Amino acid sequence: MSLPYPRASEWIGDESGYVRLLDQTLLPTEVAFRDCRMVEEIWEAIRSLRVRGAPAIGIAAAMGVVLGVQGQDGRERGAYAARLREVAGYLRTSRPTAVNLFWALDRMTQTAQPHLDKLPAVELTQLLWREALAIEQEDRGMCMAIGRVGAELVQPDSGILTHCNAGGLATADYGTALSVMFTAAEQGKRIHVFADETRPLLQGARLTAWELQQRGIDVTLICDSMAGQVMREGKVQLVIVGADRIAANGDTANKIGTYSVAVLAKAHGIPFYVAAPSSTFDLTLPDGSAIPIEQRDAREVTHGLGKQIAPSGVRVYNPAFDVTPAGLISGIITERGLIQPVDGESIRRMVG
Amino acid sequence: MSLPYPRASEWIGDESGYVRLLDQTLLPTEVAFRDCRMVEEIWEAIRSLRVRGAPAIGIAAAMGVVLGVQGQDGRERGAYAARLREVAGYLRTSRPTAVNLFWALDRMTQTAQPHLDKLPAVELTQLLWREALAIEQEDRGMCMAIGRVGAELVQPDSGILTHCNAGGLATADYGTALSVMFTAAEQGKRIHVFADETRPLLQGARLTAWELQQRGIDVTLICDSMAGQVMREGKVQLVIVGADRIAANGDTANKIGTYSVAVLAKAHGIPFYVAAPSSTFDLTLPDGSAIPIEQRDAREVTHGLGKQIAPSGVRVYNPAFDVTPAGLISGIITERGLIQPVDGESIRRMVG
Repeated sequence: MSLPYPRASEWIGDESGYVRLLDQTLLPTEVAFRDCRMVEEIWEAIRSLRVRGAPAIGIAAAMGVVLGVQGQDGRERGAYAARLREVAGYLRTSRPTAVNLFWALDRMTQTAQPHLDKLPAVELTQLLWREALAIEQEDRGMCMAIGRVGAELVQPDSGILTHCNAGGLATADYGTALSVMFTAAEQGKRIHVFADETRPLLQGARLTAWELQQRGIDVTLICDSMAGQVMREGKVQLVIVGADRIAANGDTANKIGTYSVAVLAKAHGIPFYVAAPSSTFDLTLPDGSAIPIEQRDAREVTHGLGKQIAPSGVRVYNPAFDVTPAGLISGIITERGLIQPVDGESIRRMVG
Repeated sequence: MSLPYPRASEWIGDESGYVRLLDQTLLPTEVAFRDCRMVEEIWEAIRSLRVRGAPAIGIAAAMGVVLGVQGQDGRERGAYAARLREVAGYLRTSRPTAVNLFWALDRMTQTAQPHLDKLPAVELTQLLWREALAIEQEDRGMCMAIGRVGAELVQPDSGILTHCNAGGLATADYGTALSVMFTAAEQGKRIHVFADETRPLLQGARLTAWELQQRGIDVTLICDSMAGQVMREGKVQLVIVGADRIAANGDTANKIGTYSVAVLAKAHGIPFYVAAPSSTFDLTLPDGSAIPIEQRDAREVTHGLGKQIAPSGVRVYNPAFDVTPAGLISGIITERGLIQPVDGESIRRMVG
């Protein structure tokens, strides 16, 4: 299994190199890259969703840390540590909800921590660079494992509905929810995917439909408002979505609209699964009410599609995420196995 | 109460006049009119949603009949009847779901029927013209009555969610679901409306938000995928939508996404009401499974907003309507009173 399209982010060269991002805001009509040589460019790319998807944000941020500490050779003692803190703190402000961002930044600073007083800047940067690549490589492995665990849940000739994009573009490779579909398809199971377009930013229409199409998987694009109808028509046997943060009790933040899909799935007796690597769990939060939900600009709703579609000055509510309570989730597919039932104890056992 | 913005359609002049349509596809950024002098222009305007909303479609079609029979003076006996049949049959093909279209066309032909052999063409056309204006005038009265009946269901300081546009633009005036809100606001009840944007054609963003804004009613625009979240946050105490066709048992066809909203309302214990005039009932259909559902072009989803938002060649499912089962509907607000519970017997009693 290899990705038939570019990676979300790729490190080019050695530790003095740079990050090549696929600009996902231009997909699917344009496949264009941004070479980022400054941490500010990574921050901007995360904030403006050029790179998005919880695991991919973590990877891009880790690479951004390396960009931020480049060129620290020859500065006074302590300056490197201060710069690393500054860079990590800065990247933490790019987006609030996906915990993989904070997880990756913590891992980067913890990697350097024991060596800050001992190693020269050039070696510290090498260390951080290798750690960023390791995070990327591990994510790739986790995605493949998620695919294997989740594919067991897929019956042949299934209709599978997904919301937003939890694919190769949201991770190092393969994806989380989509990795399950790719793996099931590779196992010869015929599947048919319904992709919610996912307003306001249309990650389902622009990214998920494109990824599935690139891999030759049967996909039908629907508006978010049609999910209930395709369920009612018996076309969906399974729902799989990704996650941006999962609390200790299993409450799951994911793209706005996921909660509605979960309620609809329950009403139709359709199993609803979340697929996510262990880095998406935030066991410091007892439940979903503590997950910070990003509110985004009204213009994403009123102007995000090429022209103004609402009256000037109208008030808009635009939360980027919602929280699906654990009780609506049939299971969480992780790289370590399936968490089922979804409760604090099962989660602690699997990823605690 | 008077409309602070143009009517969906207006007859200009006497029976030899023409129809002035507000081109709703250009709202809210442009308020532009189309003067229609040929029945073909009315057909095109209905098909392409320049005029839309079940009652407004019926009114436009009735006016279209008059355009179609103009200039029949001096033709041989029987020609007028043949032309009327042809015109009505043609207009019936413009859109399939809203029953008000067929209701209005039947009423027009039945009005002329007893007089076809007796009256000269000029008088027949006058008769039809007066009937079209009567349909419009009656619809205005029905909308006002719906507002009065429905406003009793509105508690002060309510959050009310609606889907699509069931406002003045969808009727002769005032609307159905929105008439309830206008009336409640006039009664001094503070209300806050959440308008689903209503993909793919965004009638909620373009029309409902605009109408409410024009009338100074507090409105917040949300994406369809956010309805569940605002319900979960306790911001919605009532859902009111319009209808395109209501079967004898109360199953209700309305804009795609209405069914999902009804399921979500039930899951949150929020009453879900349909507001519609008696002309929207089709008692010849035992239940919703017999309501024909219009399937519309894929490009409405992939290209409908000014730019291409999905990969070329992707398959799209684009039903324009769905059917909400009677069991999810708390009551149907008609000009004759509130139908509650929603079942065959209550419906027959009220509109049979």
